[in-house]
Amino acid sequence: MLKKYVMAPGPTPIPAEVLAEASFPIIHHRTPQFQAIFKAANEGLQLFFRTKNQVMTFASVGTGAMESAISNLTSPGEKILVASSGHFGNRWAEIAKAYSVQAELYESEWGHAIDVEEVRKRLKASPDVKIVFTTLNETSTGVLNDIQALTKIVHEAGAIIVVDAISGLGAAPFETDDWAVDVVLSGSQKGFMIPPGLAFVAINQAGVEKNKAAKNPRFYFSYEKALKKLTEEKMPDTPWTPAISLVIQLKKALELIHQEGMEAVWKRHAALAKATRAGVEALGLKLFAPTAPSPALTSVITVDGVDSGLINKTFRDTYGISIAGGQGKQKGKIFRLGHLGYADGSDIILEIARLEMVLHKVGKKVALGSGVKAVEEILLAENL
Amino acid sequence: MLKKYVMAPGPTPIPAEVLAEASFPIIHHRTPQFQAIFKAANEGLQLFFRTKNQVMTFASVGTGAMESAISNLTSPGEKILVASSGHFGNRWAEIAKAYSVQAELYESEWGHAIDVEEVRKRLKASPDVKIVFTTLNETSTGVLNDIQALTKIVHEAGAIIVVDAISGLGAAPFETDDWAVDVVLSGSQKGFMIPPGLAFVAINQAGVEKNKAAKNPRFYFSYEKALKKLTEEKMPDTPWTPAISLVIQLKKALELIHQEGMEAVWKRHAALAKATRAGVEALGLKLFAPTAPSPALTSVITVDGVDSGLINKTFRDTYGISIAGGQGKQKGKIFRLGHLGYADGSDIILEIARLEMVLHKVGKKVALGSGVKAVEEILLAENL
Repeated sequence: MLKKYVMAPGPTPIPAEVLAEASFPIIHHRTPQFQAIFKAANEGLQLFFRTKNQVMTFASVGTGAMESAISNLTSPGEKILVASSGHFGNRWAEIAKAYSVQAELYESEWGHAIDVEEVRKRLKASPDVKIVFTTLNETSTGVLNDIQALTKIVHEAGAIIVVDAISGLGAAPFETDDWAVDVVLSGSQKGFMIPPGLAFVAINQAGVEKNKAAKNPRFYFSYEKALKKLTEEKMPDTPWTPAISLVIQLKKALELIHQEGMEAVWKRHAALAKATRAGVEALGLKLFAPTAPSPALTSVITVDGVDSGLINKTFRDTYGISIAGGQGKQKGKIFRLGHLGYADGSDIILEIARLEMVLHKVGKKVALGSGVKAVEEILLAENL
Repeated sequence: MLKKYVMAPGPTPIPAEVLAEASFPIIHHRTPQFQAIFKAANEGLQLFFRTKNQVMTFASVGTGAMESAISNLTSPGEKILVASSGHFGNRWAEIAKAYSVQAELYESEWGHAIDVEEVRKRLKASPDVKIVFTTLNETSTGVLNDIQALTKIVHEAGAIIVVDAISGLGAAPFETDDWAVDVVLSGSQKGFMIPPGLAFVAINQAGVEKNKAAKNPRFYFSYEKALKKLTEEKMPDTPWTPAISLVIQLKKALELIHQEGMEAVWKRHAALAKATRAGVEALGLKLFAPTAPSPALTSVITVDGVDSGLINKTFRDTYGISIAGGQGKQKGKIFRLGHLGYADGSDIILEIARLEMVLHKVGKKVALGSGVKAVEEILLAENL
């Protein structure tokens, strides 16, 4: 008998109140009942994205939203800059290639944030770049990028910025309107505390203008179609069948989130991340991204001679806890502890206590309880 | 935002698979569908009670099953012996009084098990006592009584034994048939891992004979009626409407339990109790029942000058964890940590880590992590 826990940077745990929403009979989407739900969800999304602009909802996961940004905002042959800090940042360049877009890829050293000055230099050297694609939280390395600074620099160069905020939104402070971020996308199985299957795109007027000029092909993910349906009638609508039950769960999850308040949610994530880092370091392990650590997950360098996949597997098979391993060139070298979405102090206690036991199992005899001690100290100080 | 945990000696946590059963539409009970479920549940109950005799299921909680044993097995004016070790043991005498039964109450010192020799002496001094009522696990003090030894002594005196095994069954090894225990009762919100609302009574031939002779009034809880319905047709039935959805959940929970195996379930409870005691003692706290500790819960003497209710309240209000306080004359003096039913090593880690933090909150500065260290050592040794 083993209880199951998800402590990964997505999918994240789902509150019981949100799970319960999926147990009601399905309703039809072309009804006043669903339209009222969709309207409330949209308002909740705007509060979540901190924007007064439209936030489009697609029946898709995050990669679909990334593709939508390329297909809706670029033209064949166009030059773009991809400012990447890892595996998911690089995906922008892969998608661009599929759409015959010339992506200049700037990739920071993995484990480090994107260098804002490097982006400034690259844009200066390529004045024909009118759009920059980047990442808020690089899930593969556990790095948080400075989107406010990047947006400022991109705008100074006369370009617009598109941010993959899939795993970062809801964990890190993010001000779409105040920072004037042009296009922001996210996915449901992260900070939104619902299952995978919804992707979101917030877009401002500059984004809409770029969309109008962009000639790459799109249909399902067409921003024109989605925006038209969101705004043309009294009640917002969608061009295609929405993922009804996920939208209903989204509405409930956003209610819970806004009951707590965005600032409180960000503060909680920051404190949980701090407690996790303290626990990891107290055990003598090294953080993979100490200079720009993410509030959504903590990436940890594996112990000498142990493939990080074994740590991952031991967590899962011995203790029922799904964490994440390394991706791309960090496969086998790091493991990643999630503290994203529906996570509280109890999760961090359990995650670090079980890490102590996993390390024993793989032959690294740390002082049992010493990581948890460090966690508890932070949690007591942070009232968590 | 605070996740909620139940870590009390009932109600206990409910597995997701069991919760899901309650989300299906209700079915009618006078159908082959429900009869098949009830039959499977009854077979699971027999394996759980370790008996080939009938196990009756009532729509009731445990106190109803206790009352049923008095009303079905005694006559007005009859003398009985109540062998009690605390608050719930004493309830036998209260119910007996309501039915004009003369209960001789032997109460062990709270925190200690029933003295088997004292029971022998009392039965010798009162040869007219033909029935003894006692408790397997005294939830109010966290004491486990030796039912095998008590049964032997009661039988030697020519009497039968009735055991309140409400909170103990499923946690402690218990062999209804091998020990020849006459009547055993339990309740659903304990080791059965389902919500409150079902009570169970297993009865052997000696119990049935006593039932036939007993003249106290009964109707709803009539063993004659319940046994007749269980055995008279090809498929077992109930005299009144069964608590349909709880029976369906019971069937599923018993499937999970028997997949694990009763011996494995008992071993898990013993190991979790051991880990809890180690954690508590490592923090310098004293066990309330060190001589006969329960595998279902651990009772702990509060720290000097702190009402145990405050510890209880801090667990609940600050950390979302429901433990239990003291009852009866131990109110304010002890608190009780549950590890009953759907509990695993992760629960004990969390319970002891949060205890460390609760103690800090109430002004007792224990060494953070030291309790968890002791827990982890036991869990590693026990593979939990």
